[in-house]
Amino acid sequence: MTIDNSQTHQLVLSTFRCLVADLVQQYGGGHPGGAMGMAAMGVALWKYAMNYSPSNPDFFNRDRFVLSNGHTCLFQYVFLHLAGYRHMTMEQLKTYHSDRPDSYCPGHPEIEHPGIEVTTGPLGQGVANAVGLAIASKNLAALYNRPGYDVVDNSIFCIVGDACLQEGVGLEAISLAGHLGLGNLIVLYDNNQVTCDGSADVANTEDVAAKFRACQWAVLDVANGSEDVEAIVGAIDRARQISDRPVLINVHTVIGYGALNQGQASAHGAALGEDNVRQLKLRNGLDPDLRFHVPQAVYEFFSDCVPRGQQSERLWEEKVAKYTAQYPELGAEFARRVAGKLPSDWKKHIPAEFPSGPTPTRKSSGLVFAPLAKAVDSIIAGSADLTPSVHVTWPGARDFQNPLLQTKCGLGGDYSGRYIHYGIREHAMAAIANGLAAYNRGTFVPVTSTFLMFYLYAAPAVRMGALQELQTIHVATHDSIGTGEDGPTHQPIALPAFYRALPNSLFLRPADSEETAGAWEAAVEFGHGPSLISLSRQALPQLGGTARDKVALGAYVVKPEADPQLQLLATGSDLQLALKAAEKLAGRGIRTRVVSFPCTQLFERQSTEYKQSVLLRGKIPSVVVESYAVNGWERYATAGYSMRTFGKSLPGHAAYEYFGFSAGPVADRVEKYFRSATAEKLWYFEDLS
Amino acid sequence: MTIDNSQTHQLVLSTFRCLVADLVQQYGGGHPGGAMGMAAMGVALWKYAMNYSPSNPDFFNRDRFVLSNGHTCLFQYVFLHLAGYRHMTMEQLKTYHSDRPDSYCPGHPEIEHPGIEVTTGPLGQGVANAVGLAIASKNLAALYNRPGYDVVDNSIFCIVGDACLQEGVGLEAISLAGHLGLGNLIVLYDNNQVTCDGSADVANTEDVAAKFRACQWAVLDVANGSEDVEAIVGAIDRARQISDRPVLINVHTVIGYGALNQGQASAHGAALGEDNVRQLKLRNGLDPDLRFHVPQAVYEFFSDCVPRGQQSERLWEEKVAKYTAQYPELGAEFARRVAGKLPSDWKKHIPAEFPSGPTPTRKSSGLVFAPLAKAVDSIIAGSADLTPSVHVTWPGARDFQNPLLQTKCGLGGDYSGRYIHYGIREHAMAAIANGLAAYNRGTFVPVTSTFLMFYLYAAPAVRMGALQELQTIHVATHDSIGTGEDGPTHQPIALPAFYRALPNSLFLRPADSEETAGAWEAAVEFGHGPSLISLSRQALPQLGGTARDKVALGAYVVKPEADPQLQLLATGSDLQLALKAAEKLAGRGIRTRVVSFPCTQLFERQSTEYKQSVLLRGKIPSVVVESYAVNGWERYATAGYSMRTFGKSLPGHAAYEYFGFSAGPVADRVEKYFRSATAEKLWYFEDLS
Repeated sequence: MTIDNSQTHQLVLSTFRCLVADLVQQYGGGHPGGAMGMAAMGVALWKYAMNYSPSNPDFFNRDRFVLSNGHTCLFQYVFLHLAGYRHMTMEQLKTYHSDRPDSYCPGHPEIEHPGIEVTTGPLGQGVANAVGLAIASKNLAALYNRPGYDVVDNSIFCIVGDACLQEGVGLEAISLAGHLGLGNLIVLYDNNQVTCDGSADVANTEDVAAKFRACQWAVLDVANGSEDVEAIVGAIDRARQISDRPVLINVHTVIGYGALNQGQASAHGAALGEDNVRQLKLRNGLDPDLRFHVPQAVYEFFSDCVPRGQQSERLWEEKVAKYTAQYPELGAEFARRVAGKLPSDWKKHIPAEFPSGPTPTRKSSGLVFAPLAKAVDSIIAGSADLTPSVHVTWPGARDFQNPLLQTKCGLGGDYSGRYIHYGIREHAMAAIANGLAAYNRGTFVPVTSTFLMFYLYAAPAVRMGALQELQTIHVATHDSIGTGEDGPTHQPIALPAFYRALPNSLFLRPADSEETAGAWEAAVEFGHGPSLISLSRQALPQLGGTARDKVALGAYVVKPEADPQLQLLATGSDLQLALKAAEKLAGRGIRTRVVSFPCTQLFERQSTEYKQSVLLRGKIPSVVVESYAVNGWERYATAGYSMRTFGKSLPGHAAYEYFGFSAGPVADRVEKYFRSATAEKLWYFEDLS
Repeated sequence: MTIDNSQTHQLVLSTFRCLVADLVQQYGGGHPGGAMGMAAMGVALWKYAMNYSPSNPDFFNRDRFVLSNGHTCLFQYVFLHLAGYRHMTMEQLKTYHSDRPDSYCPGHPEIEHPGIEVTTGPLGQGVANAVGLAIASKNLAALYNRPGYDVVDNSIFCIVGDACLQEGVGLEAISLAGHLGLGNLIVLYDNNQVTCDGSADVANTEDVAAKFRACQWAVLDVANGSEDVEAIVGAIDRARQISDRPVLINVHTVIGYGALNQGQASAHGAALGEDNVRQLKLRNGLDPDLRFHVPQAVYEFFSDCVPRGQQSERLWEEKVAKYTAQYPELGAEFARRVAGKLPSDWKKHIPAEFPSGPTPTRKSSGLVFAPLAKAVDSIIAGSADLTPSVHVTWPGARDFQNPLLQTKCGLGGDYSGRYIHYGIREHAMAAIANGLAAYNRGTFVPVTSTFLMFYLYAAPAVRMGALQELQTIHVATHDSIGTGEDGPTHQPIALPAFYRALPNSLFLRPADSEETAGAWEAAVEFGHGPSLISLSRQALPQLGGTARDKVALGAYVVKPEADPQLQLLATGSDLQLALKAAEKLAGRGIRTRVVSFPCTQLFERQSTEYKQSVLLRGKIPSVVVESYAVNGWERYATAGYSMRTFGKSLPGHAAYEYFGFSAGPVADRVEKYFRSATAEKLWYFEDLS
């Protein structure tokens, strides 16, 4: 693409920078400097490089743009405004940092708003999301494109700052993207060498370009990145020609370009000050008395964005129509994926019955998952290097791999595969899963897997999925002290308390195969957030009374008792123990009923009547038995038999015994509690372990 | 060092591999392959390279060894045995994977046991810990060494596997170590190219050596790393000569070396099988009928380790004695640091009084911290690039920096500095802090800082600190929705539930300057685990009734009421709100008392009588007011006014109002609850927000 617009560019860049400065100045807070320094990148992207449609932000084949350095959000908001996104009026821009709850301009970009692909802010997440978006596009292209019909051929653009390249989650994602050879991913590095602590080299002096090349990225350079639109457009053009690997465009910029404090940390996260803004305008040849001013010539410069986008949409729709005529079956499948729909009969693929013998619930999960994943093409699964242990693969599963690697190291798989070897990168795995889910809601149902303990590594990304209401399913095996010999480093204690407190998410801990089927059904039906399924390493018996349909209730009576005197609540591998203890207590004349409690979040959605009928609060003593920290169970129980320390390296059964998690000690301790329980005492939650 | 022992080496290596295979075979589980492949590294380290004393595992100036790929723990256990660590008898080795709770051989190395520097297992943590150990050593050397008296001159050795180099926390630490030029750090890469999913190149095909060089490491190669002890020793010798940067020794090894399935993933995490073990012994020229057999020649080979270590200790003690004679003041200071003691008068440096006006608690914390850190030389602080926001520096603080960088980019600081710019690397920051704390208990009190939300990034490392009972203090500012415009990505909701459930740790949320002083006192006094202090971005009034001494109680009545009818519990920035609401309720004739609850974990340590006197459970309705998820508060309250969704991008005060966190709505809602509260209803915890 040849462009010669340098005079207009000057006006656009000046206008943009002064507008950003005004918007931050207005309420005396925000992040001006990054956005100002990146102005030329924005012109290159929204005016020249990106294929998108302002009048239909959800245009399926649009290029995706991720602002990984999300604090520079004004950059994106102002370009959405200039490019003609209708919702992003000047009035809306002025709501930045205001107290208006209906603002489209929050302090970081949020997925709810048109033109925003993913919510960013926590550093490093965005670039990992972009890797997920690139995988999504590659996968759809490999599955659906046919000669002459590239129905999916979009590019993924991402801007990162210095920080995203320091964060571990970013580094993990960069390494995997290089391995996968994602040639549709173009990352622009806003290389301004300034962070909150001052010069970035106070903490980082590595050779970023060499590091990316070592990760099998191509690296291009733009020297004068705060001004030189042509050079950026040229670099993007070259990057698009590089199809076998992702590209980093190292754009050297100046933070707060044009301000008195340009190039300094003070331009990063605070308003510039009235005088500084005035002088900025003067030096840019703009009237210092005009605020929020956009000359008509600037709007005209961007006036082709809307019609170009509409044209792009039209061409794509025509292409898809012809494609569907030529490939009716594929076309219908593609249409369903575009609509974000699961096959309507997905549930029938879940086995109606399971082997009657003891089974680890991770294996029960595999029995549910294998036929489901085989049948439901939206599922794209993977593991953080625990494929043999976590049972999230299926017969005939094909790896998602760089096909060019086949000759190099003999790998199978290509971009049509739906199984991703994420490597030992739990955090990036979950962030990439968010990107997959954000590509187009419902087109992908990403499934990740590792040991439950390592969903602590992944937690910041799982949280971002919950915040964005993105459906992902996380298969968390080797839960509790039952994981055994690996010891306390691998035995989660506090982690379930976090996931149970996380809004817009489900933490499911099924007790046997039947409940595992129910957990999967609940997770698939929970379309607007992450579900984490906590599964045992060790074999668990099939329990009488469990029912897959009841998992959706969150909790239910699994062992009823007429006129009960005592109640035990339990989850997962601890339910069998509670049932055995109840039997012992019954033998001692204490009428004990047992509640299975696979999901507190689902239980909270039930009616008051149902909840009271299950809990019997204040009526009888109620003891939760769970080999995790008890925090949060106090809502449902009057006492807890739980883990109060970290775990221990012992064989699983021995670890349970060591911590008193066997029927005898539980029954004894609970009986003692029951015998001593007075109405007053019940009020003070007791730790029995 | 020249060595010519190749025949003995063969016997030692064979014996080692067969012993590892036997130990895993014994209980049919564990990780044999990595340890077997690394045998030659072990000989190089324990026989030749490392300075340590088996008869005194805590010898202060010993080289530190970290096994970052902790699942290969048998590697370390067997070499500790061979080197003559008394506790590590053959009987103890045989407890690996047994059901003996008194085993010194858990499934991953644990710090409690002699000869183990840090607990490892969660991948990537160990190498970050090693960076912390290297910083510790550099810092002490810079502070205390004098010409002719290198009282601290140890090296830090670390072995990593493929996984540690994929994990984000490892990558962050590697980048920082290169920046800091830690020439005392030598990392041996067990490059066997096998992970659980098979060949490592299924998920990673980057050029590791180039990546390290880009991060300013020196890289050396050893081709035949499973056999060639001499080459490894030679590489370590060369690495020791490189004083201006850390060194990666890329040791090419074969997993499960010598077994039928050598080089395969099946050798990684399962017993080899009886037949495989027999054949291993036959091929190694050992008697297949002998199990756990160590020929006398092997013990003799290592027999110089104990006397050499004792000699090393003696020389060091003599050196320190002379040094102390020549530099009495410095010697006394050094002796105190070696003893791991704080200056006895540390508490007097905490200000007795604070400005009476509204103050953000992050700033109150700075007022406490600055004089404390100035006076207490054990404190080594830093921030993940939020130095201007978090107030963890002090007048005269010197940066811990690579002095060679001064000319390059004009940085101040050198290795004697106690302020670390961690970069935007929260996870590595906390893991490095663990390494600092583990160098020698009490010698360092590491203080880290970032926004509370980003202690979710750091959580896996904070958890490892808790598991190891290592004292660290984490300054977590910008807590709650009060952080404001940055929006929901930066506003923690579920995170406090995790930290409050974490064993061996404190989560402290002070309400004003006085309580902030108390929080710091509690954190410094809590010598055996991490403390996280949750602080406000926004100004908070100084409240009547708060008392620093009472923070140690965890909770206390801050606004008493004779014969109260209702109680409010609150923490941090929400306490002022609870007090205002209580005033309103009093105005409506409801006698309301208020409890400040800065730390649930400290409260749980109090007597039953005290706890009951504070809580008044079952006697009156009790509402917790906290702008986090309520999970866990059900133990103390009958209802909660809390956050049930993620937050929102609004100015802090507007965010509070938006979610109903202001005195009016709180008082109204609580009054309604109070008026409707029946004895039965109180039992069902109510969410009032």
